Formats: sequence, C-alpha cells, structure tokens
Amino acid sequence: MVRVKLIGAGGYGGIGLVELLHRHPKAQLAAVFDIEGVGSRLSELWPYLEGSCDRVILAPDSKEAREVEADVTFFATPDGVGQAGAAAEIAEGRRVIDYSGDFRFNSAELYAEYARRIKRDPTHRAPELLRQSVYGLTELHRDDIKRARVVGNPGCFAMSCICGLAPAVKNGLVEPEGLICDCKTGVSGAGKKPAPGFHYPERYDNASAYRLCGHQHVMEIERELTELAGKPLKVTFTPQVVPLVRGILSTLYGRLTPEATQATVLEAYHTMYRDEPFITVKTHSDTVGTSDVRGSNRLIITVACDERTGIFRVVSHVDNLVKGQAGSALQNLNVMFGLEETLGLDQPGGHP
Amino acid sequence: MVRVKLIGAGGYGGIGLVELLHRHPKAQLAAVFDIEGVGSRLSELWPYLEGSCDRVILAPDSKEAREVEADVTFFATPDGVGQAGAAAEIAEGRRVIDYSGDFRFNSAELYAEYARRIKRDPTHRAPELLRQSVYGLTELHRDDIKRARVVGNPGCFAMSCICGLAPAVKNGLVEPEGLICDCKTGVSGAGKKPAPGFHYPERYDNASAYRLCGHQHVMEIERELTELAGKPLKVTFTPQVVPLVRGILSTLYGRLTPEATQATVLEAYHTMYRDEPFITVKTHSDTVGTSDVRGSNRLIITVACDERTGIFRVVSHVDNLVKGQAGSALQNLNVMFGLEETLGLDQPGGHP
Amino acid sequence: MVRVKLIGAGGYGGIGLVELLHRHPKAQLAAVFDIEGVGSRLSELWPYLEGSCDRVILAPDSKEAREVEADVTFFATPDGVGQAGAAAEIAEGRRVIDYSGDFRFNSAELYAEYARRIKRDPTHRAPELLRQSVYGLTELHRDDIKRARVVGNPGCFAMSCICGLAPAVKNGLVEPEGLICDCKTGVSGAGKKPAPGFHYPERYDNASAYRLCGHQHVMEIERELTELAGKPLKVTFTPQVVPLVRGILSTLYGRLTPEATQATVLEAYHTMYRDEPFITVKTHSDTVGTSDVRGSNRLIITVACDERTGIFRVVSHVDNLVKGQAGSALQNLNVMFGLEETLGLDQPGGHP
Amino acid sequence: MVRVKLIGAGGYGGIGLVELLHRHPKAQLAAVFDIEGVGSRLSELWPYLEGSCDRVILAPDSKEAREVEADVTFFATPDGVGQAGAAAEIAEGRRVIDYSGDFRFNSAELYAEYARRIKRDPTHRAPELLRQSVYGLTELHRDDIKRARVVGNPGCFAMSCICGLAPAVKNGLVEPEGLICDCKTGVSGAGKKPAPGFHYPERYDNASAYRLCGHQHVMEIERELTELAGKPLKVTFTPQVVPLVRGILSTLYGRLTPEATQATVLEAYHTMYRDEPFITVKTHSDTVGTSDVRGSNRLIITVACDERTGIFRVVSHVDNLVKGQAGSALQNLNVMFGLEETLGLDQPGGHP
Repeated sequence: MVRVKLIGAGGYGGIGLVELLHRHPKAQLAAVFDIEGVGSRLSELWPYLEGSCDRVILAPDSKEAREVEADVTFFATPDGVGQAGAAAEIAEGRRVIDYSGDFRFNSAELYAEYARRIKRDPTHRAPELLRQSVYGLTELHRDDIKRARVVGNPGCFAMSCICGLAPAVKNGLVEPEGLICDCKTGVSGAGKKPAPGFHYPERYDNASAYRLCGHQHVMEIERELTELAGKPLKVTFTPQVVPLVRGILSTLYGRLTPEATQATVLEAYHTMYRDEPFITVKTHSDTVGTSDVRGSNRLIITVACDERTGIFRVVSHVDNLVKGQAGSALQNLNVMFGLEETLGLDQPGGHP
Repeated sequence: MVRVKLIGAGGYGGIGLVELLHRHPKAQLAAVFDIEGVGSRLSELWPYLEGSCDRVILAPDSKEAREVEADVTFFATPDGVGQAGAAAEIAEGRRVIDYSGDFRFNSAELYAEYARRIKRDPTHRAPELLRQSVYGLTELHRDDIKRARVVGNPGCFAMSCICGLAPAVKNGLVEPEGLICDCKTGVSGAGKKPAPGFHYPERYDNASAYRLCGHQHVMEIERELTELAGKPLKVTFTPQVVPLVRGILSTLYGRLTPEATQATVLEAYHTMYRDEPFITVKTHSDTVGTSDVRGSNRLIITVACDERTGIFRVVSHVDNLVKGQAGSALQNLNVMFGLEETLGLDQPGGHP
Repeated sequence: MVRVKLIGAGGYGGIGLVELLHRHPKAQLAAVFDIEGVGSRLSELWPYLEGSCDRVILAPDSKEAREVEADVTFFATPDGVGQAGAAAEIAEGRRVIDYSGDFRFNSAELYAEYARRIKRDPTHRAPELLRQSVYGLTELHRDDIKRARVVGNPGCFAMSCICGLAPAVKNGLVEPEGLICDCKTGVSGAGKKPAPGFHYPERYDNASAYRLCGHQHVMEIERELTELAGKPLKVTFTPQVVPLVRGILSTLYGRLTPEATQATVLEAYHTMYRDEPFITVKTHSDTVGTSDVRGSNRLIITVACDERTGIFRVVSHVDNLVKGQAGSALQNLNVMFGLEETLGLDQPGGHP
Repeated sequence: MVRVKLIGAGGYGGIGLVELLHRHPKAQLAAVFDIEGVGSRLSELWPYLEGSCDRVILAPDSKEAREVEADVTFFATPDGVGQAGAAAEIAEGRRVIDYSGDFRFNSAELYAEYARRIKRDPTHRAPELLRQSVYGLTELHRDDIKRARVVGNPGCFAMSCICGLAPAVKNGLVEPEGLICDCKTGVSGAGKKPAPGFHYPERYDNASAYRLCGHQHVMEIERELTELAGKPLKVTFTPQVVPLVRGILSTLYGRLTPEATQATVLEAYHTMYRDEPFITVKTHSDTVGTSDVRGSNRLIITVACDERTGIFRVVSHVDNLVKGQAGSALQNLNVMFGLEETLGLDQPGGHP
C-alpha cells in the first residue's frame, strides 16, 4: 500500500486527490496538511466528504508533518510552496509530486522566465532538485517518471495542448511555425477563491478571453513540442473562460505539411496513442464533448484537418481537474511505484 | 458475486446503475437490455462509458434475455414495463427491483389510482406480484426488503419527503394535518428526453412550479406517513423545477404539536437515523446545499423548526439520481443479498 | 423631465436604474455618485454601458453632489447610507427613494429590531424622517407614495411575498396563523460582491437554504400583512438560493378559512389586481416560470389552492432586480411625480 | 412610421424583433404571421410578452396576409420560406428582409452550393430577386442596403467573423491564406426546438465542436472577405457550442503580413470602425466578455496580435440574437427607410 502525504487540502486539486484515493486499492491517504483549517476535519471544510474523509488537517510545519509515515508527498499547493518544502520530504525518504510550476522546468533560467510571467521571485529555492525533476506528462515521460524523485505535474492547459499536438509535431505532419492553441476552460481551473469574474451572476452567460499575451503555460507547451519536433518552435496560446465548471476544450491549429492529410494525421495519432489507456482518438464524424471526459482521467482527441484550406486541426477534450490535475498526478504515482497505471482511475465520470 | 440483469440502459437511471456497479466489489453487470440501440455497444449511446462499459445492448425479448445468468433484474424502465416482465424474471429465479411506480403499492386499488394520475391503464398486469412487492425505502422497510422477491423503488421526490418527515410523524412531533412538501428538483429528474421546458435556453435562468394538483408521488408519501402516524394523513405537494441538473431540495412544513420543540424534534431525528449510513442530520446553523449530496447516496436533513411561529420545518437534500434512484436501488440489492449495505455506495461525490 | 440623482452606481441596483432611465421618456439621470470609482466613467466599471452611460462617477461628499440639479435622489446603497444622507437631500429640495431597509419602518423601535437582525447599529440616524417615510410597495400605498418625501423601497423577497398574500389576507381567505413563505432566489439578490457560496463552481449545481431563523425581510412582511389582516400575524420565512441569476419564486402557504375555496381565492386576487398594470393572476393550469418576468417589472401570481388538504397556496414570480428593486423604485418615481405609472417600465424582458 | 409585417413569430428571431420594435419610436409591428399558433395571441406562445404584444397570429396564406398595410416584410423563418414568398411581398409594395440564407448570395450557383451544405433543394425559387438582393451586413454594404428591395441578413457566425476580419483583410495586414475562425456560440443560436444536445442536463457542463467540415456559414465569410481582399481566399471555420445562451465569441487567426504589427492592425480597426455606432475596438489589455454585448446590438473586437509568433489575432464578441440577427435586421430597416441608424437599438443590454 502506497501511503500518501497530502499538503494542500483546501483547494480543488487536493480534494480531487482525496476522492481518487478513496477508491484506489493500493494507495491511501496517510495524512492531510494545510496552513488553513488546521485542527478541523477535512469534512468541515468540505462537507461533501463527511463520512468519506474526516481526517484532521495538520499544520505543515508540525511534528506530525515530519514524522508521518508516507512514501510520497503531494504538493497540491500554489507556486512556491513545493520548492520550499520538497528537499525536506526527500530527505525523509518520500518522493514528491508537485501540482504547480515549481518543478516543470529543469533549468533555473527557464524557471526564472516562468516565475516572471506569474510575477514571482525568479530565483528557484531548490535548484538542485529542479535539475533532477521530471515533467509529469506520463504519456511522454513514463520511463523517467518511474525513477523520478520529484515530478512536476503539467498545467491543465498544457496537458490538453501537448497531448493534442504531440503525434503531429513528432511526425512532421504540421509545420512547426504558426501553431495555435485556442483553449476554452471551465471556471474550476481558477481554483476555489472567489473573484469578480467568477461570481455566478457575472459568469453564467459570459465567455471571455484573458491574458492574451504571456500566459505562463505557453512555456511548457513550447518546451515539450520543441523536444518532439527536434527544433525550436513557438505557439500562440489563447486562454478563454466559458461557463463550464469542469472541462477544457482545446482546438489546435497549424499548417499541414506537404505530405500530410487527414488520413496520415489520423494514422499518426492512432499509432502513438494505441496503447495509452487514457487517450482516445476520434474523427470529425464523431460527436464528442467535454462531458464525455467529465469526472474521468480520459483525454479525447478529435482529428479534423481541413484539407480544403491546408489547415491541420485537432480538438482536445479533458477534465481540467482529473487528467488535467489530480488524475494525472495519481497516474504518475502509479507509475512511480510500479502499480498498474489505471489503478484508481478506471471509473467513468458520473453522467449527467 | 451478485449478477445483475439490467433492463433499460438508455436512460439516466440505467447508466447510474452501470456507474455504481463498476466500483461494486461484489455485484456486477451480467447483461444489458433495451428496446432501443439493440446491437450497439452501450458506450455508443453513452460515449462517456467508452472503456468502462462496452457491452452490446440486447433485445429484451431475445433468447439471451431469457437465458442470462443473473440473480437479480433491474427494471430501469418507464411505468408499465416492469409489471409486464417481472413474472418471467421471477419464474427464472431472479429477484426484481423496479424503478417505476409499478410495484410501489400493494393493492390493485391504490395502483389504479396511481395509474390514473399518470394517465395509464389502471389495471395492473401482475396483481399477485403487486401484493408481495415491498416498497424499497430501505431505512423504513429493511427487513421486508431482505426477503422481497419484488421491490418497488421509491420515487425521488418521495424519498426526500418521507425520510425528511418520518421521525417527526412517527413520534407525534408534527400535526398530521397540514403537512406541506415544497420540493425543488433538478432537470435530470425528468429524464433524458428533450422537451421545450428543458431546452437549455428555456431553462437556464428559470424556476417554475408544475402539476400543482395531483402529482402521483403524493400517494406514496401519504401511504408511508400514514403508516408511521398510525392514522390517515394528507400532504400538500408542490413540485418545482430549478436550473439544477442533479439534486432535490425539499422543504417540509407542518405545525409543531404542543410538546414539540426544535430540541425534541432534533433529538427524534438523531435517534431514528443514528445508525443509518446514508442519512445525516444537521441543524439550521450548519451550511448545507444539494452539492453536498451530489453524486453520492447521502441524504442530509436540516432540522430548522420555527418556534416563534409554531411551525415544524426540515430541509431534505438528496441527489435524485443516486439516493433518489440508482443508489437506493443498489442499496436494496445489498440488503436483499446479505451484503454490507454500503458496498459500492461509499464513494464521495465529485466536487465541484 | 424628472431629474434623478443616483447615489450608488457600483451595484446591480444602481445600474438597473440606469438601464431603465435610459428608456424613460420623462425622467433622466442627472448625475451619478459612488464612494468607489470616483473620477472613472460608469462604463469603465460596467463596460456593457459603454456608449449608453459614460458619465463620470462623482464623490458623494463633493461640491457637485450638493449642487446637482435634481428632483429626486435614489440611494441604491447598503443599509445605513440613506439614513445618513437623506436629510441633506431633502433640505436641498429633492425627494428620496432608498433601496435599503433604512426607511421601511416608521418607528425607531421597529427599525432597531431590524438593525439588530442585520447586525447594525440599532439607533436610526434620521428618526424624524423615519416617521414620515412611506413603504414603497406601490400597489398597497400608492396614495401615500404620491405625497411622500422619503420612500423606503421594499425588499425583493418582501415584494414577492406581500403581493402574493395580500388579497387572501385582506379578505380573510387564509388563516392568519401558520403562514409560510418558501422563497427561492437567484444569486443576483446577494449583489455583485464575490463570496464563496456564489463562486461559479460552488453554485452552478447547488440549491441551499440559509439564514433559516431571523431573516430581516420577515419584519416588513409581517408588518404589511398585519395591517391588511387587521390583527397581528406572523410568518415563517425560508430563504433559499438556487442557480438562477434573476428571479424569485415564492411559494406561499397557509390554511384556507372555512369559507375559502380555490374559486373564491382566485376571485379575490382578480378583484384586487384587476387594474394593476404590473400584476398578473394565473391559475394552476397555466404554465408560468420566473423567465416570464425576467427583465420586466411584472409580478405573476399563480393561485393553486389545494382543496383536498385545505391548504391555501399561491406561487409568486418576480425579477428580484426589477419589480423587486430598480423597477419598483422607478414605479414609485412615476407615482411621486404624477407621471403615468408604466413609463419606462412597459418593455418586455429579453428572451431567452 | 414604418410598418412591419413579421412572418415567423414562433422563434427567437421573431420575438427578438418584436422586443426591439416595442421600443422603436418610428417603426411598429403591423401584423404577425406564422404557420403555427394561428388564431392564438403571440403572448400565449410567449407568455413573457403578455401585455406587450398580444396580437393574434395570422396565417401566412390568409387574406389578411395579403392586405396588411406594411412597408417592409421580415421573414424570420427557416431557409426556403423567404424565397418562396418574397416576390409576392414586393409585388404588394413591401421591401423584404430575410433572416435565412435565402438571399445571402447573388448567384444561383453560389446559392446551390449553400443549399447543398444544408441539404436543401439547390434550385432557388426566385432567381431574379436573388440577383438584386443585398447582403445585409450594414457596415460593409450600407449604400446598397439603402436602395435594396431584398436584404439577406447575415448569419450570426458570419457577422462576428466578417466584422472581426474586415479591416485586416482589406488593408493587407493578414495573409489571405490560412485564416482561421474559431467560434463559440451559445445555445440559442440553434433556435427554440429541443434536441438531445441542447437538453439542459446534456449541455450544462459541456463544450463541443460540431460540423467540423462544411458549415454553410463559411461561404458568406469567404465571399465577403474575398471581395475585401480583392483576391480569392478561404477560411477554416470551427463552430463550437458552449453553455452560453446568448453570445458568440469568435477568435480569429491568421499570419501577420511582413509590415503588420499590433499597432498597425489596431490603427486599421480604429480607422475603419471609428464612426460605426455599434462596433467598438479594444486591445488585449482590456477585459471584455460576451456579457458586455449581451442583449445589445454592439459588436466588440479585441485586437490582440502575437508579434512574438507572427500571428494575427482578434476576438470578436456579439450577441447572436441581436447584432447577430434581429438587431442587425432592424439596423437594416433603419438604413432602408432613411431613419437614424441607431433608432430602437441604443438600449444597453440588461445586466447581469
């Protein structure tokens, strides 16, 4: 039984993991930590967990935090927390999975650029761990994740875009210049903190683009795709919020290379993802929506190139809180500890 | 392993059971039947089930239907189907759980009145089974359900109202005259069939009362409460639709009897439900919403009598598709087959 | 042309008035004041008003505030603001309409009780104005409103409940004891300030009751109904939030008096409201929802008594931001200044 | 006073016009026709119009239809109706505005291609009128619309895309090859007819792309942009449905031409739209959402080119039922009859 220490239980990412662990046959929650709500039961913060998880929230700097018997520590925390605490976790023999951008880059330079975009201190607090960290996109880095001591889990937008573009980029079926990621996310992607733009009356019949230049997720998308392409590339990224709660719909565009067609593109996607338990490939004649991935760890890609215009196009569907966050983190746990990759993750989402 | 034959897989009630069985350790789906979609995989009708339930839908009148090796048959079907098919199921050694009103009454007379309200043939097609059938409200009829051959699962509104009123009515803390059930339901209660009133643009910012006189669920509420009171009583029932998808919020009113107070009422609820795994009692100082039961088999009752006005008041929260339908049906399966009652049902709902 | 000085432009109540005045042929906005956003154009705070209302927001304590040429001042402000500023407005020759509870009661004692419920200073700052103030429920106090110097506009819940119960209470068709107001409101009723319970992901599929004992709106409901009944009465009030943005659905219950029937009740409603331009009476065989009043100043009452149980029941539908707030305030302006009562208010709401 | 004959009152497009005419000072409804609901009052079909429009619906083939005294006929009808009836309207001296695709093309060949895409008879029934018809995008064809006898009102997607791309295409700031229209629409765009994909429980937390190849609106977009560019061009069009009711958010992409920058593009938009009363230009540092145009005839364009990647990008916001349909049709009426273009259209949308 893999024992999980969870730091950060107040947000959607933390409770998402609690939900998933509840049905995992070989991993379980060892203890829950947060700087807020210390001494309360988790179910007092989140009444829907009453009876399912009534653990008391402990302080991250408490004696219990150091002594908890666990094999892995999840930092379901904002940027900055994981890099400050990861070294101590590792020193105590626990491996680390971090949800934030703290360990998504291997170099201090890249991290500094990332930190600037989100207006944080550009100096990483654990540079040596940064160098060892592995980007937690399981489908691309499975072997490295197996051995990783620190995994930096992907951003939800990045997950949808990288998986959606990888086969085409890797196989040279789309021009590396001019890639476009038009992404629509549900509101849960912004977390549980109330804000004017997410106030129910302001959001219920409202779609909007935001941060049209300089979103930090672009960096990990470009880094991963550059590796796949074997040469530098850039993407244009358009984050948009629509009145969804869970779900990201990313429509990804580029120019078909001379030899590429809908058929060859489709074939490349089928080939790359054939054995992936969580990725499904469809075509434009299939009806797909984000509700088909809602609540599950699936990612569905619709290949719908427009040969008439020479435009490469795929649509990527993902639940930002599962495959986009807690689900893929748990998938990484399974990989890291040699468990079957689908354990705890093979439940269909609830419908409707 | 209890093997389940499911008749009716096209609706929310059927897929709700499929979802729950997917994580049940001691019960499993044996075969799926429906009059629509025969020959298709269930996941073609419901793409979110792809990889989780790809069984082929069989015809209810097929050879397979008769020969399927199963211990229990679920009729997740509209009124009229279960009464036509139950006898054959029982003849083949399977016990029956029916979602509709077909087996909620023990007498042909009561059924006839019920049928008239929903404008159906008042003559029951299996009157001898009707007499043996047990009303599937587990908390009130657990012992009879253990031995039942046919269980008539409660209506979702009825579930919320009966559980919400039972302790007060049974203990004489509310006057039997003048009971009021003010019920607000999500749209999924009306099923998956599109209709003008459930068209997204017509429902998204719209709350409305309907069928203000003569809703059929009143009958089972009155029958159960009459039994608990030991004398005839009537209730006023107000069904209302609000822009929820899952969830019923029932606010239940009456007059406090002379000896009743908020304290005595609360005590009665705690006493009656103390050992019930799926019922939680709260007071007006707790914050509760239907999202706290969403996706789970829980039913939460807030006791909030108004001593200033002498009015008894409780608020009952339930997910109409789980404790209000597939979940309570599975709870009955657990009881009927001697399994632990919470098996397959102890997962918290997904949040948000 | 009636010139309107608006204090409080940052909230839904203020912009609601701005919208309505925009199409009023005989009243117009003279100036806009707020403590926030001073110096900005109103359309910078509310971009949807760009081109329609680009006035600069002025400080309430500025020279312009004193010198603005206006005939009436609207306090679209929280409790406490109107009572502090009304005297100065009147001294400068302007009549006052206040949205809050500051002028809904005529006695310092009643106000003190109200203030305690909302946890404010119980001492009214303008007691002599309080004595002269008129409760702004036009349909009940039209003649007094004509001459009023200060109008206290009703609460939105109170509007729906008082209009819904008045004919029955006045005509002795419902027992004065045991009245119940089961009210469901949209989220805009709580204003524009973000809060955890109104965060989009927390509210989108969630219905909940709140403040189950002691909501302040009970007081004005009881005061008005007591006057109509000619004897003291109390009501039980259940405020509930559902995932609407605009709209209140109030289901109102009591016991029919011996002589009352659905027919006599219906007749009483038709009689009382026959000439009211904004109130429509329907019966349970009509399909009505809050979307039928959305965006308009209409209030629709469905009379649906349950003779079988002896229960009086009506359903009241209103847009909390129009007839429940800015619309009824403008209706009062029309009455106060001798204008046709429907001016600026006869536009149907937009659908869907 | 311009008198309007409205054919097609059962849908959102027809009632949208009824709402707008209600506040138009110089145009009014003369009579309402539909094949459904004949003999009923319009407010029986649409209760929210009670008191605002209680006209009786007449049969389109009735004596009244021929004899109605009107200056202009609106066909708020599906494809095929306008082309069958327009000639008779013109023969009786009425000018025609059609909402469908019947008169959006000037040649039988183009129409035939359009008709094939929507699976209709490719033979136009009034080819001579087709040749004279004017495309009703006021901002581009104002002079021709003034004199037009038949106006084919643009599709809602087309409106958002053409206005969003026109200045860049016309001024050679975007490469004509590789234009992409990523469009997200609210559900009202599909009309009032219930369908599985628009059933409230299926749509409430669901975003999906559809008809990924061959949507009919592409044709009018390409035709208009080709004219502006002075050379043939093609666009890739991705229609997507999100859980909005009203609103289209179109994100439009291309490659910046060598001389183009964010600054030159912005300048071109300001120049072209400076005097347009309904079009507003913003930049990526402004916060804009579809709720800013909801209920109004405004169209807001955010210019947000990505110079880092060389990608041209603008975001176009429109209410599909106002500027996307009834509002732009009324704008055309104003132009056709020499009225001020903003009459009846200068009201801000209701918020929230």
